[in-house]
Amino acid sequence: MKAAGYAQVMSSEVTSKKAWEQVVDWVEQRVLSGELVVGSTLPAERDLALRVGVSRPAVREAVRTLQASGVLRSSVGAGGSGGTTVTGVPHQALTKLLRMHVALASFPATDVTQVRVVLERLSTSLATQRADSEQLAGMRAQVELMDDDGLSIEEFNGHDTQFHVAIAEAAGNRLATDLTVAIRESMRDPILEGLYALDDWKRVRGLLRTEHHAVLSAIEGRRADEAADLVEEHIRAAFARMSWLHDR
Amino acid sequence: MKAAGYAQVMSSEVTSKKAWEQVVDWVEQRVLSGELVVGSTLPAERDLALRVGVSRPAVREAVRTLQASGVLRSSVGAGGSGGTTVTGVPHQALTKLLRMHVALASFPATDVTQVRVVLERLSTSLATQRADSEQLAGMRAQVELMDDDGLSIEEFNGHDTQFHVAIAEAAGNRLATDLTVAIRESMRDPILEGLYALDDWKRVRGLLRTEHHAVLSAIEGRRADEAADLVEEHIRAAFARMSWLHDR
Repeated sequence: MKAAGYAQVMSSEVTSKKAWEQVVDWVEQRVLSGELVVGSTLPAERDLALRVGVSRPAVREAVRTLQASGVLRSSVGAGGSGGTTVTGVPHQALTKLLRMHVALASFPATDVTQVRVVLERLSTSLATQRADSEQLAGMRAQVELMDDDGLSIEEFNGHDTQFHVAIAEAAGNRLATDLTVAIRESMRDPILEGLYALDDWKRVRGLLRTEHHAVLSAIEGRRADEAADLVEEHIRAAFARMSWLHDR
Repeated sequence: MKAAGYAQVMSSEVTSKKAWEQVVDWVEQRVLSGELVVGSTLPAERDLALRVGVSRPAVREAVRTLQASGVLRSSVGAGGSGGTTVTGVPHQALTKLLRMHVALASFPATDVTQVRVVLERLSTSLATQRADSEQLAGMRAQVELMDDDGLSIEEFNGHDTQFHVAIAEAAGNRLATDLTVAIRESMRDPILEGLYALDDWKRVRGLLRTEHHAVLSAIEGRRADEAADLVEEHIRAAFARMSWLHDR
């Protein structure tokens, strides 16, 4: 199949591509064509270097890049790239990517919050329909832990994150879950910094508790639209309170 | 600021981290703390190797990984990592990541489509409110190009993509735009393959034209809710027609 548009631009760039990029492309093309699937073993480092016509260090650089993307995994104890197999674990890579680019302001906090609202509306609505009793108990546990006045801001925020992650996981949409987790992680440091600087943390904590309990009740009551609306209100209200994020 | 939860897990892993990962962490921590910003120059390769206590090849592997993430950029002609500066260009990295993981089925097509619906509803609604006359003309041009019966399936699909990208860009939310583009790109190959295999392409083409014109009219008429609903119907209908994607 011939490729036009984007793909033509890509192939015209191939000539100027660096050695390690050629190796990344070699792997990527075989993943996209289905020749390499999860569990496939990559050729040994020296063979791959010969096939692509690059040096072994270039292969190693490419393999590192694809490991960081969650596309390759090295088996412990195996030498070269002979023990390098294809995997499909995007979660950590996505989180790292978003976290770095939020920090670099490639993605402003207001944009990130808008996207978070639509993703968490989706997750909450799905979770309300799909969560089993164990998943509901997991959400409730996090909300009840947040009622403890003895928690540090950081501990409170940890349970807050875990509550939202539990909802996303119960939704059963892997992309929505991974993006939700990645977005929360990407905002973690600036949010924590801001919470520590608050002079009315106890008031904010009270508001957060009320909002979380309301969301949980709607989910437990299987009221999907109400749960989605409450999550949206909660995220928007929380962002409105965090004035230090608005110009980031 | 002390870090708990996730961060504690991360730091306990540091001891077992590979040399290149330690360098990635070194850069990442400085990006997250704001010490490195867009435009900052990275220490030269040998200095960075000394500071982190790893070999120069390990630094190079880490730099490649961060280049692939759109976090670092090498200036042409500069040697070592002395010409390596911090940048913030997540678009290509995000597209590559999602495309690979859709191909590896880490993200099933049904999950991706659900997320696409909520992102494109958001983009369309924002674009309806914000698009200037030039952006509206750009959308119209793509829709009118699709009315040409002489286009190949691939050319038609290219304009289809560009119409949706034009909407996302007019929305002015960078994360939503990048995710929309990345998701469309990630589904490009399987969609094209399936379109080529259709025996009623002309009927499908007619439906796509009608749907695109309807979305465009609602955007031009500044009817945000209607435009968002039409985009959702369009994406869901298109996915329903693409039976070959349903079990991916």
